[in-house]
Amino acid sequence: MKYNSLFLLLLVTFLLSGCFANKSRVDVDPLASWNDGPAKQNILSFVTAVTDKSSPDYVAPAERIATFDNDGTLWSERPVYFQLMFAMDRVKALAPQHPEWETTQPFKAVLEDDMRALAASGEKGLLQLIMATHAGMTTEEFSQIVKDWLATARHPRFNRPYNELVYQPMLELLAYLRANEFKTFIVSGGGIEFMRPWVEEVYGIPPEQVVGSSIKTKFDIRDGKPVLLRLPQINFIDDKAGKPVGINQHIGRRPIAAFGNSDGDLQMLQWTAAGEGKRLMVLVHHTDDQREYAYDRDSHIGKLDKALDAAEQSGWTIVDMKNDWKTIYPDN
Amino acid sequence: MKYNSLFLLLLVTFLLSGCFANKSRVDVDPLASWNDGPAKQNILSFVTAVTDKSSPDYVAPAERIATFDNDGTLWSERPVYFQLMFAMDRVKALAPQHPEWETTQPFKAVLEDDMRALAASGEKGLLQLIMATHAGMTTEEFSQIVKDWLATARHPRFNRPYNELVYQPMLELLAYLRANEFKTFIVSGGGIEFMRPWVEEVYGIPPEQVVGSSIKTKFDIRDGKPVLLRLPQINFIDDKAGKPVGINQHIGRRPIAAFGNSDGDLQMLQWTAAGEGKRLMVLVHHTDDQREYAYDRDSHIGKLDKALDAAEQSGWTIVDMKNDWKTIYPDN
Repeated sequence: MKYNSLFLLLLVTFLLSGCFANKSRVDVDPLASWNDGPAKQNILSFVTAVTDKSSPDYVAPAERIATFDNDGTLWSERPVYFQLMFAMDRVKALAPQHPEWETTQPFKAVLEDDMRALAASGEKGLLQLIMATHAGMTTEEFSQIVKDWLATARHPRFNRPYNELVYQPMLELLAYLRANEFKTFIVSGGGIEFMRPWVEEVYGIPPEQVVGSSIKTKFDIRDGKPVLLRLPQINFIDDKAGKPVGINQHIGRRPIAAFGNSDGDLQMLQWTAAGEGKRLMVLVHHTDDQREYAYDRDSHIGKLDKALDAAEQSGWTIVDMKNDWKTIYPDN
Repeated sequence: MKYNSLFLLLLVTFLLSGCFANKSRVDVDPLASWNDGPAKQNILSFVTAVTDKSSPDYVAPAERIATFDNDGTLWSERPVYFQLMFAMDRVKALAPQHPEWETTQPFKAVLEDDMRALAASGEKGLLQLIMATHAGMTTEEFSQIVKDWLATARHPRFNRPYNELVYQPMLELLAYLRANEFKTFIVSGGGIEFMRPWVEEVYGIPPEQVVGSSIKTKFDIRDGKPVLLRLPQINFIDDKAGKPVGINQHIGRRPIAAFGNSDGDLQMLQWTAAGEGKRLMVLVHHTDDQREYAYDRDSHIGKLDKALDAAEQSGWTIVDMKNDWKTIYPDN
């Protein structure tokens, strides 16, 4: 072979490697932080079945909708929901402008770190806390407040920013599903506008694929500039029976895979399971009090009782965090 | 050059043509049904500016959100909104099960084709009509009813299925934007569940990219099967000041391009215009009573008055249907 033939051969090789670069990456374990076991196996075989065009279970990419609860499924939810930590920090930050809070519940309880008194204020107290800290500003102002909080607040046990306390195995799962042309959505009882400022960077889930609870907003013109004002009125609670409602409202398709961790996710899993064709329903079971937390049937936060029964009866996949996950959080 | 060198050269050429196939298609006019003029030019130069990485106006693909009104912007809205034609046809179909409708307004007016009496029943009558025909079934049942109606109903003037009365130039625009990595959304005052069954096939817009008005739904288990029941209660009106609210709720990002045709779109256009960076605001002006309809400031349906003033004052793009569009509807 002459010199210029060799050059051309090299060029061919180079071009081939460029054209087929994607094909050469498939050997890496997409779920490297998952131990081998039934949970990992169920996920892998589900994805293989619905993406293989020759499989009777094949699903077209447009219908590959996967929905994920957030609190306790993608990130931790202890000692209390992180959004409640945010609300309490905001009460403290805003207290100088509200001297009346020093003597009014539930604000007094927050200012005095009196968790017992806060719990005693019940759902009504919680709602007051949310409205005092989540309403009364524009959507853009609220988004900035959330970003500023995440940049400075630290989790009391792990001493890390809250958005680092996301589950490494679930990050891999999200990426794996998207690599297989799934569209990944969050469907959370948490506030939609509390999640949107950070979930794209952390989970790779864009704002338009976030479904959550919300308060009402109102369009207004302020100083000649259009704004959306956040009002102290509940708009939608995206929890329990609200989850299928929220899924239908936002997505308009039934998921073929759904991931949750508590009774708040039961109806989302039932709704997912009731569709035709192959389905994947997964519960993350918090079994690791060393590396994270262990709780289920008797927990106030993330109670997993009826959904655990349903999973066992229906053969849904249960992830045992202690045994199925090699690591919990990403490295610093 | 020897024979095997020639072979390799041919192989290189073949591989190069494979690798760069997308680049060779740019010569076709993506807006072939648009006459040359300021409207077409504004659209083309906007898209060029925001997609050119070396341009100061460059916008990352994730932020390329374009929102489209539906009635009067993507399909016709005369003699009345097509969804109202649907509701009237449904009243006639359901009348045998409702003998009381023969003597009760607004149903009597519909059964007697008495448009004057129907108009006299006002907004309250319209709401009664919607609730009687859009609620009381599951979401899946309603979707099938809409599909069945589209398969059989014909427009009174054009004698074509309603979902053929979509604007060919707008179909090209949607495809052109998507080819330039825009995400295209519908943001319509029409019913979200009335649009979803057909817009994916007709516009290439998936259900999760449809924002619209809605009634409430409720999760229930019927005969052991989870369903979503459609309730006779308004959930959200996605019109006028509701459009920015709906955009924020569903998309969570501000559009960089928005397309409407009436005062119902004014706030969506204002909201879009108020963002930073280059923006495109477009109004479709119905000026062609030969090929479609001509109406603006005095029209009951699709009234275009304040938004037309705003467009003229702010330099938004106004599409003159008669002069800017070579064709209105797709060929049969």
